[in-house]
Amino acid sequence: MARDDEKRAPRTSTTTRIRPSRRPPRPAPSSAAPIAAIGPDVAQSPDPHPALSLRAVVERVRPRIDAGRFPAKRIAGDTVEVLADIFADGHDVVVGVLRDRSGRSTATGAAGSEAAGEGDLDERPWRETRMSLVAPGTDEWGAAFTVDTIGWHEFSVVAWVDPFATWAKGLKAKADAGQEVGVELVEGATLVREAAARAGQIGTTGADAAWLAARAETLCDAETPSAARVEAGLDSDLAALMFTYVDRRHATVHPPVRIWVDRERAQFGSWYEMFPRSAGSNPARSATFREAAAHLSYVADLGFDVLYLPPIHPIGRSFRKGPNNTLQAGPTDPGSPWAIGSDEGGHTAVEPGLGSLEDFEHFNAEASRLGIELALDLAWQCSPDHPWVREHPEWFRHRPDGTIKYAENPPKKYQDIYPLDFACEAWRELWQALLDVTRFWMARGVRIFRVDNPHTKSFGFWEWLIAQVHREDPGVIFLSEAFTRPKLMRYLAKSGFTQSYTYFTWRNTKAELEEYLTELTTTEAYEYLRPNFFANTPDILHAYLQEGGRPAFEARLVLAATLSPTYGIYSGFELCENRSAGPKSEEYLDSEKYQIRQWDWDRPGNIKALVRSVNRIRREHPALQWNGSLRFCVTDNPEIIAYLKTARDGSDPVLVIVNLDPHHMQHGHVEVPIDRVGLGPGDAYAAHDLVTDTPFAWTGARNYVRLDPGIRQAHILRLDVAPGSNRGVRL
Amino acid sequence: MARDDEKRAPRTSTTTRIRPSRRPPRPAPSSAAPIAAIGPDVAQSPDPHPALSLRAVVERVRPRIDAGRFPAKRIAGDTVEVLADIFADGHDVVVGVLRDRSGRSTATGAAGSEAAGEGDLDERPWRETRMSLVAPGTDEWGAAFTVDTIGWHEFSVVAWVDPFATWAKGLKAKADAGQEVGVELVEGATLVREAAARAGQIGTTGADAAWLAARAETLCDAETPSAARVEAGLDSDLAALMFTYVDRRHATVHPPVRIWVDRERAQFGSWYEMFPRSAGSNPARSATFREAAAHLSYVADLGFDVLYLPPIHPIGRSFRKGPNNTLQAGPTDPGSPWAIGSDEGGHTAVEPGLGSLEDFEHFNAEASRLGIELALDLAWQCSPDHPWVREHPEWFRHRPDGTIKYAENPPKKYQDIYPLDFACEAWRELWQALLDVTRFWMARGVRIFRVDNPHTKSFGFWEWLIAQVHREDPGVIFLSEAFTRPKLMRYLAKSGFTQSYTYFTWRNTKAELEEYLTELTTTEAYEYLRPNFFANTPDILHAYLQEGGRPAFEARLVLAATLSPTYGIYSGFELCENRSAGPKSEEYLDSEKYQIRQWDWDRPGNIKALVRSVNRIRREHPALQWNGSLRFCVTDNPEIIAYLKTARDGSDPVLVIVNLDPHHMQHGHVEVPIDRVGLGPGDAYAAHDLVTDTPFAWTGARNYVRLDPGIRQAHILRLDVAPGSNRGVRL
Repeated sequence: MARDDEKRAPRTSTTTRIRPSRRPPRPAPSSAAPIAAIGPDVAQSPDPHPALSLRAVVERVRPRIDAGRFPAKRIAGDTVEVLADIFADGHDVVVGVLRDRSGRSTATGAAGSEAAGEGDLDERPWRETRMSLVAPGTDEWGAAFTVDTIGWHEFSVVAWVDPFATWAKGLKAKADAGQEVGVELVEGATLVREAAARAGQIGTTGADAAWLAARAETLCDAETPSAARVEAGLDSDLAALMFTYVDRRHATVHPPVRIWVDRERAQFGSWYEMFPRSAGSNPARSATFREAAAHLSYVADLGFDVLYLPPIHPIGRSFRKGPNNTLQAGPTDPGSPWAIGSDEGGHTAVEPGLGSLEDFEHFNAEASRLGIELALDLAWQCSPDHPWVREHPEWFRHRPDGTIKYAENPPKKYQDIYPLDFACEAWRELWQALLDVTRFWMARGVRIFRVDNPHTKSFGFWEWLIAQVHREDPGVIFLSEAFTRPKLMRYLAKSGFTQSYTYFTWRNTKAELEEYLTELTTTEAYEYLRPNFFANTPDILHAYLQEGGRPAFEARLVLAATLSPTYGIYSGFELCENRSAGPKSEEYLDSEKYQIRQWDWDRPGNIKALVRSVNRIRREHPALQWNGSLRFCVTDNPEIIAYLKTARDGSDPVLVIVNLDPHHMQHGHVEVPIDRVGLGPGDAYAAHDLVTDTPFAWTGARNYVRLDPGIRQAHILRLDVAPGSNRGVRL
Repeated sequence: MARDDEKRAPRTSTTTRIRPSRRPPRPAPSSAAPIAAIGPDVAQSPDPHPALSLRAVVERVRPRIDAGRFPAKRIAGDTVEVLADIFADGHDVVVGVLRDRSGRSTATGAAGSEAAGEGDLDERPWRETRMSLVAPGTDEWGAAFTVDTIGWHEFSVVAWVDPFATWAKGLKAKADAGQEVGVELVEGATLVREAAARAGQIGTTGADAAWLAARAETLCDAETPSAARVEAGLDSDLAALMFTYVDRRHATVHPPVRIWVDRERAQFGSWYEMFPRSAGSNPARSATFREAAAHLSYVADLGFDVLYLPPIHPIGRSFRKGPNNTLQAGPTDPGSPWAIGSDEGGHTAVEPGLGSLEDFEHFNAEASRLGIELALDLAWQCSPDHPWVREHPEWFRHRPDGTIKYAENPPKKYQDIYPLDFACEAWRELWQALLDVTRFWMARGVRIFRVDNPHTKSFGFWEWLIAQVHREDPGVIFLSEAFTRPKLMRYLAKSGFTQSYTYFTWRNTKAELEEYLTELTTTEAYEYLRPNFFANTPDILHAYLQEGGRPAFEARLVLAATLSPTYGIYSGFELCENRSAGPKSEEYLDSEKYQIRQWDWDRPGNIKALVRSVNRIRREHPALQWNGSLRFCVTDNPEIIAYLKTARDGSDPVLVIVNLDPHHMQHGHVEVPIDRVGLGPGDAYAAHDLVTDTPFAWTGARNYVRLDPGIRQAHILRLDVAPGSNRGVRL
């Protein structure tokens, strides 16, 4: 039998939402002051089921990846918007609190641990923030905290049925209905007196205890008129103190949930990839790091933040590849930098053609001076000439005849490469050696590593390696170069990789781009997988670039640089180099992987000016430095893609429009999501092209664009909305 | 640098699916024979991270509710389709195995336990089934097992990188390419020899070991031609034995996942609710159980399986409610059965007006004889006259003046009810007493309980109570009567309730019904929340019934009985009783909650014949006995709703079409999902009305229907598709 107020007929029954909403309605202002906890959070008892007696339920705490197995990621300064389902039986008032604290950068992501062990985090006190209902009747609560330091953070949600708040709610209802509330006031006095006692035990001065004790006397003072006593009971100062000294012995505490916080470069950066050996003036030999250093100002001038170098280690001789991946190398062919190791050393040595370790350090220092950070390649494989082949044969697989197994994908053979056996009997020693290599380069100032084919090494290895490195320096960035199946790519990102290569190069149509970016920005993967949109790589020269010429390079540059806060190009892209090794090949002709090239960095038809502009615009516009606000716009031409981005606070609206057809003029209309930028249907405003510094007079949502290959392939438009007014500037 | 076979460009990147697919593509036939496990599943080691060295990853195992906190539910005989994401680094062959075992019915759903403790399940051996890829490139694997017994079951997923399968794959590729494979054959011989050694240790006879040893010799026998040795290596008998004796020391084992299995009545049943005191011939006094027993044949004749009785206990005198919920009861007013407890006893006593405990037992026996199972009400609350009020005042809340708190929702007061305080200091004793009450009625043969307002009692209490009861009898069914917010209703279902009341009574339009049923059948809630669609209750007479008259009752009967495998009506529904207590009230006029009524069970305008037909059709058609196949059909009239259901194997297609407008004839076209029943666009077939036993000649997808209030409000159509042929019967 339903009590008449218990029979409810919700019109809409909310179904479970899949992924954490990144932008919940902002909770009401709440006290973020540290609160002293009274007693243990969960009643201690020999009873087998004390937790069952806790009345509040806390469920579906977000962001939380795989039930806490992996952390969500943020960068320093970010806000973490936490949502949870919180409810209790009956009609009593429930209170929810978000707790957070930062830890030392020493947490390990040990497999199987559902949350950070307490030992991994400082025993610092929790910071607490009151949570509030996101919307009435949803039982969904929200609050937020800011992560200011890099490394581990953790949060939890605490909830309880609050006797005082329940009492106050009932008192108000009865008083409003004109009922006699004498007994209620006495009841309230008891609650306040109990809080006074708790305040006396833990308060720093006796002031709060005394104040509460006095208030208790007022509440049950028969001399005071009832109305005044009711007012004293509902007073907000009393409510605040009652919250401070609440009895939390029966509070439900959700297990801590970890957040990993990186430095800003983990999320926002412009990458440039080059082979330093090609940066000299003599194509007959490798340029040295000293020579290549002269080329750094070129990279800096284009506006790049990160310079990624393929492996810089001695290159093996055995089965060395010749130009264009031929099996026979000539005596002067330099070989592939990924065939690591020779008599000159292995992963901690520098290829003699590039110079010495000191030359590398000089190169790195020069890059730093120009505001460029180096990224080195971690390619965990060996040429047959690598010292480890002799010193640690137990780290490789062997054939019955005693020889070491080269890489193969039967029937194909890759005899220049010996894979390491990450699951060999001596795996602990091997893993330690690889960590030591990483540390070697960290000690030389390297804090960004691009990892070669991580999906062909044990996943557990990466989780371990990255956790170990982050214990020493939580600012180290790992980029996963895995082009494999979606679940493996996501697992690597969950396991600790800071950034990931993506399928971007193979997403060229409007539908492909919109579908892929929607996946990257609106599924749970957004919490842990940060894309790095390389527009090309030494392995990938897409047919779109081969066939589309300069307009294709312009389109792909703008797409990469504005669809992902981190993007990159491999040198030659800015020169529109597009000759492939064969008609159906994505390999470059005369690839730098196998030979030394020399480039005319000013050759005609280059798009250096556009690269420079795009990188400047990215630096100037916070809208382009994260991906949380991406929204695609409707256009009436399938060759025209358009999308709006804003900064986290909704300001800085940037609208990007790209003609995906490199061969023909395309025109049509773009529907600007004017609701997102505070514009009305009839409002006039300026859409200001940031590349050409040209304003266009636009009105309302639907506006005309025309993009002509050879003139311009894309607009990057600042929408001039008057600050604060939420209105467009009248032109 | 990407090896050329490692660079992939998936066209579609699968995003995380939300809920377990209930019908994954059927895995290929696989061996279900028990497999002896070799050694421990996970390498034991003092190393802190041995699990990190395991190469296979097992993720997103389904069905699994809240990371294993709660079990998915099934009924005996069901198949559990398990899906998991399984992958490993590199290119080696991965093998996945589904394990399952049934347990004693003694598992406890203790809060906080992520999975069944080992102690809760028999140490029976696991049954194992090979898993297979659901589709290439997805890394999603599937297999299924059948649950034959009620109670706890558990399953797990085990996966490993398989050296022999990897070897065989490589051997075949090389042999097919005409490469020399002498070294490979020697390598294979080593693997087979190792398996022979394992077989020697654990095989029951030496036969397998000897067979394997001989095969190893063949593989490396230089005298045997290479082609014959390759054939011997790729032989399926060898593969089967190599699987049987595989080395699982490095296998990844997912933690066990629990499944709770109920008896069939948990999912499929037709419920009837009545007040036994109204079943007599003298309206001046309560009918006794002996008198009410005579009415049981009426219930049986209508085709119901379950008869639910409101509380049968002594009714309190204090603040007893009079007719139509008036505050003053007259001396002969019987009071509300939910005001439990008087001088005559409490929750284990029988209201004297109904007779004695023996009379109840006679009633129950008579019901059983007629194929009807009784459901009693667990209403954990007390009238002020309940013996517990005197004996256990500590189980109630008190006011400062020492009185016990009655129920209230300020400013409303419910002075006839004292709520129990589930979080009182003596909660353990209170909970035990309530368990004892439940056991008392179980000892009298009651195995179904309808629970009154469970959401106003501690959630942990229900989890504990139901687990305790299920230790004794896993066949006991609990129906949750919670009409509250969606998350609370779902939490109760997760916590152990077998069935749940729903929002069905308030879902009357086509859009409302389709949205609600889609939520119930296609979200994760389908795994644990079983709806019981009551068309009315003593608390809920919806305006649709009040205003729509007999056609409305017909429509709602058919909807309830065919949209949910479990449904019910409260007596009077079949008589189209629709007089409400007031113009905006959902309460009945002269409600049986407060007074004894007498009914003319044959009164004109009743829909008993339709009730009888519908219950017969439900029994005859497996399509209507579960909800997994529900699919709504497109119609061109918003007042006409249509849906198709089939049995689990796809047979028994039943199409239901209902006119939701009780006032007017509605007609239009229904789009039959002919793809689901194996019909082509031009096929002719019979749509056979099961109520009227009338065939209609239909063709293809789009067919005309006309439903006229007063003639018929609904069709329940059997689609006559020739068995086995996947074709319609030509008429």
